[in-house]
Amino acid sequence: MARTIIANGTVVTATDRVPADVLVEDEKIVALAAPGSHDWAADEIIDAAGKYVIPGGIDVHTHMELPFGGTFASDTFESGTRAAAWGGTTTIVDFAVQTRGKSLMEGYEAWQQKAEGNCAIDYGFHLIISDVNEQTLKEMESAFDEGVTSFKMFMAYPGVFYSDDGQIFRAMQKAAENGSTIMMHAENGIAIDVLVEQALQRGETDPIYHGIVRKSILEGEATHRAIKLAELAEAPLYIVHLSALEALEEVTIARDQDLNVFAETCPQYLLLGLDDLGNGFDGAKYVCSPPLRDWEAGHQEELWRGLRGNDLQVVSTDHCPFCMDEFDGLIAQKRLGEGDFSKIPNGMPGVEPRMELVYQAGVAEGRISLNRWVELCSTAPAKMFGMYPEKGTIAVGSDADIVLFDPGKSKTISVDNQHMRVDYSAYEGWQVSGTVDTVLSRGRKVVADREYVGEKGHGRYVKRGANQYVH
Amino acid sequence: MARTIIANGTVVTATDRVPADVLVEDEKIVALAAPGSHDWAADEIIDAAGKYVIPGGIDVHTHMELPFGGTFASDTFESGTRAAAWGGTTTIVDFAVQTRGKSLMEGYEAWQQKAEGNCAIDYGFHLIISDVNEQTLKEMESAFDEGVTSFKMFMAYPGVFYSDDGQIFRAMQKAAENGSTIMMHAENGIAIDVLVEQALQRGETDPIYHGIVRKSILEGEATHRAIKLAELAEAPLYIVHLSALEALEEVTIARDQDLNVFAETCPQYLLLGLDDLGNGFDGAKYVCSPPLRDWEAGHQEELWRGLRGNDLQVVSTDHCPFCMDEFDGLIAQKRLGEGDFSKIPNGMPGVEPRMELVYQAGVAEGRISLNRWVELCSTAPAKMFGMYPEKGTIAVGSDADIVLFDPGKSKTISVDNQHMRVDYSAYEGWQVSGTVDTVLSRGRKVVADREYVGEKGHGRYVKRGANQYVH
Amino acid sequence: MARTIIANGTVVTATDRVPADVLVEDEKIVALAAPGSHDWAADEIIDAAGKYVIPGGIDVHTHMELPFGGTFASDTFESGTRAAAWGGTTTIVDFAVQTRGKSLMEGYEAWQQKAEGNCAIDYGFHLIISDVNEQTLKEMESAFDEGVTSFKMFMAYPGVFYSDDGQIFRAMQKAAENGSTIMMHAENGIAIDVLVEQALQRGETDPIYHGIVRKSILEGEATHRAIKLAELAEAPLYIVHLSALEALEEVTIARDQDLNVFAETCPQYLLLGLDDLGNGFDGAKYVCSPPLRDWEAGHQEELWRGLRGNDLQVVSTDHCPFCMDEFDGLIAQKRLGEGDFSKIPNGMPGVEPRMELVYQAGVAEGRISLNRWVELCSTAPAKMFGMYPEKGTIAVGSDADIVLFDPGKSKTISVDNQHMRVDYSAYEGWQVSGTVDTVLSRGRKVVADREYVGEKGHGRYVKRGANQYVH
Amino acid sequence: MARTIIANGTVVTATDRVPADVLVEDEKIVALAAPGSHDWAADEIIDAAGKYVIPGGIDVHTHMELPFGGTFASDTFESGTRAAAWGGTTTIVDFAVQTRGKSLMEGYEAWQQKAEGNCAIDYGFHLIISDVNEQTLKEMESAFDEGVTSFKMFMAYPGVFYSDDGQIFRAMQKAAENGSTIMMHAENGIAIDVLVEQALQRGETDPIYHGIVRKSILEGEATHRAIKLAELAEAPLYIVHLSALEALEEVTIARDQDLNVFAETCPQYLLLGLDDLGNGFDGAKYVCSPPLRDWEAGHQEELWRGLRGNDLQVVSTDHCPFCMDEFDGLIAQKRLGEGDFSKIPNGMPGVEPRMELVYQAGVAEGRISLNRWVELCSTAPAKMFGMYPEKGTIAVGSDADIVLFDPGKSKTISVDNQHMRVDYSAYEGWQVSGTVDTVLSRGRKVVADREYVGEKGHGRYVKRGANQYVH
Repeated sequence: MARTIIANGTVVTATDRVPADVLVEDEKIVALAAPGSHDWAADEIIDAAGKYVIPGGIDVHTHMELPFGGTFASDTFESGTRAAAWGGTTTIVDFAVQTRGKSLMEGYEAWQQKAEGNCAIDYGFHLIISDVNEQTLKEMESAFDEGVTSFKMFMAYPGVFYSDDGQIFRAMQKAAENGSTIMMHAENGIAIDVLVEQALQRGETDPIYHGIVRKSILEGEATHRAIKLAELAEAPLYIVHLSALEALEEVTIARDQDLNVFAETCPQYLLLGLDDLGNGFDGAKYVCSPPLRDWEAGHQEELWRGLRGNDLQVVSTDHCPFCMDEFDGLIAQKRLGEGDFSKIPNGMPGVEPRMELVYQAGVAEGRISLNRWVELCSTAPAKMFGMYPEKGTIAVGSDADIVLFDPGKSKTISVDNQHMRVDYSAYEGWQVSGTVDTVLSRGRKVVADREYVGEKGHGRYVKRGANQYVH
Repeated sequence: MARTIIANGTVVTATDRVPADVLVEDEKIVALAAPGSHDWAADEIIDAAGKYVIPGGIDVHTHMELPFGGTFASDTFESGTRAAAWGGTTTIVDFAVQTRGKSLMEGYEAWQQKAEGNCAIDYGFHLIISDVNEQTLKEMESAFDEGVTSFKMFMAYPGVFYSDDGQIFRAMQKAAENGSTIMMHAENGIAIDVLVEQALQRGETDPIYHGIVRKSILEGEATHRAIKLAELAEAPLYIVHLSALEALEEVTIARDQDLNVFAETCPQYLLLGLDDLGNGFDGAKYVCSPPLRDWEAGHQEELWRGLRGNDLQVVSTDHCPFCMDEFDGLIAQKRLGEGDFSKIPNGMPGVEPRMELVYQAGVAEGRISLNRWVELCSTAPAKMFGMYPEKGTIAVGSDADIVLFDPGKSKTISVDNQHMRVDYSAYEGWQVSGTVDTVLSRGRKVVADREYVGEKGHGRYVKRGANQYVH
Repeated sequence: MARTIIANGTVVTATDRVPADVLVEDEKIVALAAPGSHDWAADEIIDAAGKYVIPGGIDVHTHMELPFGGTFASDTFESGTRAAAWGGTTTIVDFAVQTRGKSLMEGYEAWQQKAEGNCAIDYGFHLIISDVNEQTLKEMESAFDEGVTSFKMFMAYPGVFYSDDGQIFRAMQKAAENGSTIMMHAENGIAIDVLVEQALQRGETDPIYHGIVRKSILEGEATHRAIKLAELAEAPLYIVHLSALEALEEVTIARDQDLNVFAETCPQYLLLGLDDLGNGFDGAKYVCSPPLRDWEAGHQEELWRGLRGNDLQVVSTDHCPFCMDEFDGLIAQKRLGEGDFSKIPNGMPGVEPRMELVYQAGVAEGRISLNRWVELCSTAPAKMFGMYPEKGTIAVGSDADIVLFDPGKSKTISVDNQHMRVDYSAYEGWQVSGTVDTVLSRGRKVVADREYVGEKGHGRYVKRGANQYVH
Repeated sequence: MARTIIANGTVVTATDRVPADVLVEDEKIVALAAPGSHDWAADEIIDAAGKYVIPGGIDVHTHMELPFGGTFASDTFESGTRAAAWGGTTTIVDFAVQTRGKSLMEGYEAWQQKAEGNCAIDYGFHLIISDVNEQTLKEMESAFDEGVTSFKMFMAYPGVFYSDDGQIFRAMQKAAENGSTIMMHAENGIAIDVLVEQALQRGETDPIYHGIVRKSILEGEATHRAIKLAELAEAPLYIVHLSALEALEEVTIARDQDLNVFAETCPQYLLLGLDDLGNGFDGAKYVCSPPLRDWEAGHQEELWRGLRGNDLQVVSTDHCPFCMDEFDGLIAQKRLGEGDFSKIPNGMPGVEPRMELVYQAGVAEGRISLNRWVELCSTAPAKMFGMYPEKGTIAVGSDADIVLFDPGKSKTISVDNQHMRVDYSAYEGWQVSGTVDTVLSRGRKVVADREYVGEKGHGRYVKRGANQYVH
């Protein structure tokens, strides 16, 4: 039995913030005690003086190795989970994809195979439903039994992942029946595609037009529609990567009406904006959907409001990196869209800097409290996706997924010091005033003194239960 | 050094719910550990098997010995805090009253004197401002320094506690300046008094008319007005005893707008209704302001919605008991209003059954989660009124204010088994399926195996800090 | 030159209500004068003493001879316009239909041919767009030049009239460009079809299920979506046959936001309800889409609110009759849906009793003013669809489309005294306290002393201009 | 019998716009006819070719000779009604004032005396209630019988006109009972006075601070409160001189809820702004309450939105002029407030240019239609205050209050060409592209070819009926 003490730190959970030592035995937290009040024996003592001792970050929206636009997201489960660990994230939930014409469970198994033996940290899966039919609906039950309790659908990407309102409604009915949650990419893709076509016809091919044509009002519309369909089906709904104030307004109304409607946003929507898509093709680095929004319209400010007031419950990343140029054996993926922004693979790298970025802009700059940071990045994701109390908190009996965060150590974010498998950082040169120092995954150190000491294969599949926020 | 172990229970906080033993040294919690994982020595081991181990309840709205309508609330600090303890409440915040024409601090000192040496549990004070003037505003600073960081004002009760909008606005400006919170009794008392007078002229003198004339729309109006004045003054605002859906709607809008607006409701508004004011003069038992609301209009259902979605953050009691008949040396207080409902002393007993009532209707009947119950009754009051982390949680370093709550033990509420100094129960004959079993106040048992073992004078004054929810 | 005097009546317009004689020369109103103040010579004097002299009714939503569900609406342009005249309507705007795969103008011409030489009163056309493509969009300009300035699209009826959001958006862009108005059947037909299929699978085949599966929330959703697409396209939008409070709420919000969003409702949505769809297959008489709504949910009351406050601007009929049994050479059309409610031809007869029904429920029963009745049934339709000032008012220079309405003459509505070509009345046995007495169409009597004296072919095509309410 | 023909003009009413000749006999309009269609004999023919023939303007908010702040509004009924006529206004409704401690009817009679024999055009009265008591409430009935059917109250001006919520509520109850309308000056004067005092203490004494301290949020608050009190009392409510978007939002909500809530705005709130209060003491010219609002906050744009969508129904002036310097025997009235903005008499001259200003900014600049201009400035005031159909329209039988408005004649507004008894124009140098040409009051020319030809004493008292918009 291995025993580790994390000594002299400030333990921070979604509710509490207290000086306490933490005792870990093997994979679990077994005790918390006032420093000096105990005589624990241990194999190792990690000094956390001056540091926050927080539950490991949980990123419930990643796309490792996702096939998209004729290429694959550049991070493998190996490289991506290692980068996650570097950034203080100890669990990811990735998206397995049903291939059209194939069964849901085939998709699940394919993704299990990609991940198995490769992950530095624990991982779970959502399932993307590409094809709604009697069999698929039935398989939502098998998937639930395997710990996949959330299913993602798309109102965007016609011809690719898109489901129509009838398919969505059927899946929602099934979700209402078996207690799973529908995750929604809420953009009116049908209308957007008209605008895309018209822009290209006008010769507007640069990345900036990606941001211009994907109107925020169309994210608002789709969000409203998803909510109304879910209300009718009485199904829990979780809006992914909410970026637009119009969408947030719809979620706010729904929550005021006591509906089981939830939503996440991502650091890029909080911190970046439409301008980043400019500068010619360099803007391709920032192409993701929904797109980065115009600062002047006030989206970012409203998102912070939503995080404070709990109309947004989670910050995830939608990590889905593509290289700008040839890199580590990969092609210049983003350049597939040179001359046609609609062909730029959608996605940005983000799994690594999430905890630090949200700490900086949220806590250090006074927008949210320390407890809320932990809740948004760890506790709420755990409860929302059925992983609590193993994950998401520092409590007796929980998994020893623990991060020592040093609020006194600043750092400059850069492609030069990052660990994601991609050739740029979206936050190049940004300063953060607090950094991840040490990371434990189920009691085992994976980052120590800012060095990676983990290994692939340590990460274990997390069989999830139902959404714990549903009422 | 006294050491107590609370063993084998399920520790429940606003966030967590885990099996854990709790180690108390003297007045503080010093450790939590997995059962079986430790070898703690202790003077006493309290077996909590099958029980929830929760932070002691905090009731931030009580009126012990309040002078009102020519008499006094029947509970003294001694009897009232003892009853609170019986019900699992380990801290109250009572209202000291400024007498018109006298200074604010005189009011504070008078109430300190009433409480000192008499309380079974810890206590703090808010201050009721009856008289806004330059001196009073200045004294808000002294009061803050003494740990009175919240000030109550009345839009109701013209000629008694009433402040006009100008007085309220001045106090709010001061609150904005020194970081205190304005608590508001939000009813348009000026308009209500017209309706009272007209009802009495029509010979409508029974208690039921108390409920009829105090229109819910006038609570909504006053709540809106208080919010707008606070918005202009940039002051934190806390609406006390919110009872009407119209008022909740205003609070919901304000919170959606990111304002520092907060609100509490009370068990009577969640569980009782206008009908209870009927039955001739017997309805006098249920006379309080705002009044109990009509079930058919949906107020109660909306209040639960508010509690779930965090538009209401706290459940307190507005404990202010008056006897129906002669009792324990007291006059038949409620009967002062025979023949004229407006002379019935306003108030109901409630400090004792709060935790059990909210558990029953909230948790047992599926309206809120176990964590939310703890948050509403303990954690949020502690943070709202600057008592956290000493109060409001089960965490290393916190005060050992601990309740063992037995979810398997049912009980019938009755005047016969209650401990408040009053001759009726508003919930006579109600069944609750969980009960308070054992209560520790700063490490000392005050209720053990459902027997009171505390003593007056144990309770200590809590010097409070600022509202921790203000952003 | 023929001169007619309408003497001693009370002239009522959208604004005015004054005792005045009206002088008609040939097709036009040439003068109004105080009775007794003039010495007009005339060929005929029609005594209007005790009667309201109002502009002829305008019904902007009729479907004569519409092919639907394998049959045709039972009224021809001849029978239908004659019935309209009986009911005090002097202009209809019917819907020409583009056949899929054919051109828009072919549809227009086909309908012109159906109407030409057959109408008792004047008529215009909207165009139903079934097929959005480059040619269709271009033809919207030709149609506009021909006086077809409004185009209807369907979010319901997938596989039949349905357009997807991209097609709708393209048509809206064109409408914004050339000043035409998009009319929308706003129900989420894709989701409704799932519910239809599921109901039929459960053996729910009676007409009542038509009303149950077409959820009002799905009319609200579609209305919201149509508004958002129109807002983005900056196109005028007119919601047809609005029936649900959820839809009205969306229109109300849009109008509060100053958008060019308009809406009509129909007598059946104001006066009938879900219950009428009961009684076994007899309910087939009441099958139309959107369906009649549940009284208990408050839809009807809200629609009247909308009419009063101008969130609804027009009352039209959606006249689209189908026979229950063999009648006048027609098959038992409604019975096509015996055993499967989804096969019941959608539509109800209504062009004849509109003016009297709205007068009765609106004016006589105190829900709207006399001026508002005229505005809703005549003036607003004229302005909304570019026919003012020729149509829609009693003013010097306007067409002499005049109705003498007798508020002192009651009548019982019945299949026995109606003139629509259909074998039932949806209002069988209803009493109305005012009736149409005399009707002039462009100066020519078509109904006199409650007898039809018109002739087919009198009616002339109305070449319409743009919506006069657009700002 | 005098007969006048107004020939060849375009008659414009709230609904219609048609070329028509108008025949006037003595005081009444007796006929309208198509030019060329009649052979009317007449004493005089006024050529209206190229002009709009509209109903005379009605200004329902004027304060001639109002005692305020130790002086009197500078226009007498003689000078003020003459100026009104110059500007195309043929009826005013002025405010008689109840003196505190005296009876309501004494106020009425005093104002009758001031007006009698002095007015160039017709006039009516509202009554300002300064003192609510049993007698006053009873007198509201006598006043109604005398044609005073609307009563104004103030939530502003504590110590002067201010009524508390109880007084307001009592008057509303009476209004609900006898069918009269409560007019409200909606600003929270109690809170404003705190801000005034604080500003003066800080040495902020210039006119600009008048605009800064009278916060728009406090107009919104008072408007909300007035609406809620009226809703409870079930009384019609008319908000006077609405200036703030927060207030308009409350009115919009109330009207969406089908309440009998109405509101007017004034040209100064549509056209001027906070900046006009700058420039040292020169800003005193623009001191009125509520104050001119900040353009940047969007108030003005929202007011136009309200006028378009009928959330605002009337444009009146709140004409209440005070001289800047000694003028025509008057003292330098505005200078009473030198060194203390709170002592500047509140009010601006406006009765003369209203019709032209609203035409210019509204019709000529495309914000509202021609019909809407007539409705806002004449028809709606007539119906709102019970003067229709004698006033407010061009129709057979109506009073021959007629204005010929020349849309082709521009003019520069200036103190040099105005006729109000005041030494400045608030719109000095503004260009308007249409002007009043000829004005008839009850058939008699008062302005002809832009020359005044009226006489004092022609104007007659208008005994008004109830609000015709109440439902």
